[in-house]
Amino acid sequence: MIDGAMLFGSEARQAAARFRSQDPASGQALAPDFSSASADDVAETCALAAAAAPAFGASDPEDRARFLETIASEIEAIGDDLIIRAMQESGLPRPRLEGERGRTIGQLRLFAAFVRQGDWIDATIDPAMPDRTPLPRPDLRRMNVPVGPVAVFGASNFPLAFSVAGGDTASALAAGCPVVVKGHPSHPGTGELVARAIQRAVAACGLHEGVFSYLPGETHALGEALVADPRIRAVGFTGSRGGGLALMRIAAARKEPIPVYAEMSSINPVILMPGALASRGKALAEAFVQSLTMGAGQFCTNPGLVIAVDGPDLDAFIAAAADVMQGSTAQTMLSPSIHDNFTKGVSALAGHTAVETIARGQGETGANQAVAALFQTSAQQFLSDIALAHEVFGSSSMIVRCRDLDEVANVIASLEGQLTATLQLDDADIPYAHALLPVLADRVGRVLANGWPTGVEVAHAMVHGGPFPATSDGRTTSVGTLAMFRFLRPVAFQNLPADLLPHALADDNPFAVARRIDGVRERSPR
Amino acid sequence: MIDGAMLFGSEARQAAARFRSQDPASGQALAPDFSSASADDVAETCALAAAAAPAFGASDPEDRARFLETIASEIEAIGDDLIIRAMQESGLPRPRLEGERGRTIGQLRLFAAFVRQGDWIDATIDPAMPDRTPLPRPDLRRMNVPVGPVAVFGASNFPLAFSVAGGDTASALAAGCPVVVKGHPSHPGTGELVARAIQRAVAACGLHEGVFSYLPGETHALGEALVADPRIRAVGFTGSRGGGLALMRIAAARKEPIPVYAEMSSINPVILMPGALASRGKALAEAFVQSLTMGAGQFCTNPGLVIAVDGPDLDAFIAAAADVMQGSTAQTMLSPSIHDNFTKGVSALAGHTAVETIARGQGETGANQAVAALFQTSAQQFLSDIALAHEVFGSSSMIVRCRDLDEVANVIASLEGQLTATLQLDDADIPYAHALLPVLADRVGRVLANGWPTGVEVAHAMVHGGPFPATSDGRTTSVGTLAMFRFLRPVAFQNLPADLLPHALADDNPFAVARRIDGVRERSPR
Repeated sequence: MIDGAMLFGSEARQAAARFRSQDPASGQALAPDFSSASADDVAETCALAAAAAPAFGASDPEDRARFLETIASEIEAIGDDLIIRAMQESGLPRPRLEGERGRTIGQLRLFAAFVRQGDWIDATIDPAMPDRTPLPRPDLRRMNVPVGPVAVFGASNFPLAFSVAGGDTASALAAGCPVVVKGHPSHPGTGELVARAIQRAVAACGLHEGVFSYLPGETHALGEALVADPRIRAVGFTGSRGGGLALMRIAAARKEPIPVYAEMSSINPVILMPGALASRGKALAEAFVQSLTMGAGQFCTNPGLVIAVDGPDLDAFIAAAADVMQGSTAQTMLSPSIHDNFTKGVSALAGHTAVETIARGQGETGANQAVAALFQTSAQQFLSDIALAHEVFGSSSMIVRCRDLDEVANVIASLEGQLTATLQLDDADIPYAHALLPVLADRVGRVLANGWPTGVEVAHAMVHGGPFPATSDGRTTSVGTLAMFRFLRPVAFQNLPADLLPHALADDNPFAVARRIDGVRERSPR
Repeated sequence: MIDGAMLFGSEARQAAARFRSQDPASGQALAPDFSSASADDVAETCALAAAAAPAFGASDPEDRARFLETIASEIEAIGDDLIIRAMQESGLPRPRLEGERGRTIGQLRLFAAFVRQGDWIDATIDPAMPDRTPLPRPDLRRMNVPVGPVAVFGASNFPLAFSVAGGDTASALAAGCPVVVKGHPSHPGTGELVARAIQRAVAACGLHEGVFSYLPGETHALGEALVADPRIRAVGFTGSRGGGLALMRIAAARKEPIPVYAEMSSINPVILMPGALASRGKALAEAFVQSLTMGAGQFCTNPGLVIAVDGPDLDAFIAAAADVMQGSTAQTMLSPSIHDNFTKGVSALAGHTAVETIARGQGETGANQAVAALFQTSAQQFLSDIALAHEVFGSSSMIVRCRDLDEVANVIASLEGQLTATLQLDDADIPYAHALLPVLADRVGRVLANGWPTGVEVAHAMVHGGPFPATSDGRTTSVGTLAMFRFLRPVAFQNLPADLLPHALADDNPFAVARRIDGVRERSPR
């Protein structure tokens, strides 16, 4: 059922102001119309979240894990209605959305297993030493506790995996933080289906209704009020650099500033090392264009920059890439505004005096159609104009021709922070790759060899993060179990009577977590 | 040897601009005069730090541990000259400074052991699954890497343990980050002795000279330039709220914003529960005034706020505390500016219409002498004027009389973030303490029972942190081994050839660290 409601905890309400989503493939508006939540709706949902925080934050890991698993099952139970609505609202094809649903559900289940396992509590006990001189040592116990209510902003480019029940929501709930979601206005029907699934899971698990609220909306004022609300303690956001920076400013100006985890902007450099370029340039070109154009290039990890040493092997790579791109068909983008920004970005590069257009894809055939674009420039030009390093969200990429490998290193070192960097290399390239690796690792959250950055594995070892402006906080990731730590903070308890200690730190270890005692980690009791 | 130099890596240089420190007990200037480093000196030291970062950041844990131990030994080897100079510059007594030296050295050795043990690397491996469907899983490995050069601001109140080789420097070096210290102008001789000890350790361990530089100085411009330098990646600071906020603003306005770990302001509430107040009010009063006046109250964890239910037991506590305080002698504060701020803060409270002065200590006898002060007000007044909750750095404390325990909870919930909160409680108080504990834990980094917040143990389980404005980043601590994580960030490596993998993630585990494989922690190989 979709009726355009806002969810205030367990209650569904309709706002007077309404908006509709659009099928980007046809440009037609979709029924029904949706509540456009306003800044006035923020306070009540945040109050509910604050009321839910103490009990939810102190809940047993087993209970919290079952809650995450119940959300996964409830989303699964929506069935094909979810896929159909998401296709209509996003223009994304069925296999992609079915895969994304699988990822969203798998992510919730992975967090459930991780919550149950308990290492995230980081239970650390330094026992008292009453006889130590000159002063006795107190009993000191430390654990991670949830930060409190979290505001999550749904992202347009992953209507399931980075939206209402996406990575930010899953990791915040896993950490024990109530969540208030601002739904993305380009897929409100998809958002409502998922939000109601979470609402059902809250009820089924007997949790405080304030654990989850959902505010669909299309105004900046709504998001601004959410970040400014004093009960919100952290923010998860995936979107544009401008949007992320605006939220960071609001968060920093609060009476009590809070962290904003914004994943914003990345052009994901790919370095074609000479050996790889010589031995398999054509295959690399094909795989590159495939990664670039997949999903109309609407991935944070889209390969928007290719760096290589000039010469006949690079010429051959470019010719092959141009061939493939010229055969590529236009694809529907997620929304008119994303399509507009793509078109403007591509036009600006095409008209830049230092940039040559290598190839475009097949022409437009309907609304919001993106035509892939490939450009080239020299390292000297690239280094002299920062605008050439700006992200164009969509299937647009820039090849930078370098004189030699030292110039490759200079181009890398000039880059702003990135989510990923990729090395295409053969065995012969390894010696120089050794020199490049620290320069690369310093600028990114993930280094790949002989793959493509699109396709972000949800795993323990994943880092989907990186120095600013890839994210607002380069110490974190928004994908993988490590994402949970964004919403935790340590608290120490000194000489607390046994009756008062949180369960996670009690002597008899009722949560059966692996603890560090006097600096030495116990064997896991599981 | 103290000659007033700045240390640019291995080189000692003199600046034209000079300043002198002062013996706060006599008000007399101390020889020699010191280089007043300027903003122009920042770039060169930061360039050295950046040059040192790759090799130092990739160094073997064993080598880094030995470096920390060498610093400890070099500081020990300075001998009594260090204590004598620190006494002259700080006005602190010999036993306190000897204890602080022991703590500083012990801290370096604790970090050495922690670095060697290797858990901080958080080596996490999700092995490839080439046969997974629909897509194979890549080999994904994650580890913590140092963020890069760190700027450390020496604090006035711990000339050893929070200054040149204090907790910020020790934890940054432990993480593999080169450090540039801005020395505090009130103890430049102490600072130089310690800085030269670190410089000797760098040379003895054969490290890049840029691993450590030292800039004594007294201008804001120096610190501002340091935080603004693009090579600096994080900042450690302990000091005033105004100073910390200024550094946060500079860091946020950079092209690439960086984290500032500022420990700023805390009044450390102590809650006297009814049972404890009834059974041992007099003993509590004595211990309270002792904690309050120790070291002239110049501790971040000084108990500046006492909260209790009104009644005869509280009257008796107050009378006993007044007795003890009236007998307390004036003590030398660290510097004229700290003394001025204390005097102004106490005068403002004494002149506040809603505040009653309960007691003062013995009168002033010389320069920079602090006379302890104890005030009281009602919960209603306290809740209506935020100024009553501002920190007065020094031995000044406010007692808040509450109607009942619910009002106690309201007062706690009204507080800004704090480093600590203390419960004085008997068994009979435990049921209500259960209700208070989540409210307390939400506002602080450390909760104590039946102790006093002064005296911060350097341990694995310590949290010396807390929500804003106690610190700028409530997810962190500046004391204890967890402090190291402020200067680390995660990086993932995907499908890297074995030859390219960082040692910490190599299959044969040359650093012998405990790893997490596919979500399951291995037994420690040590």
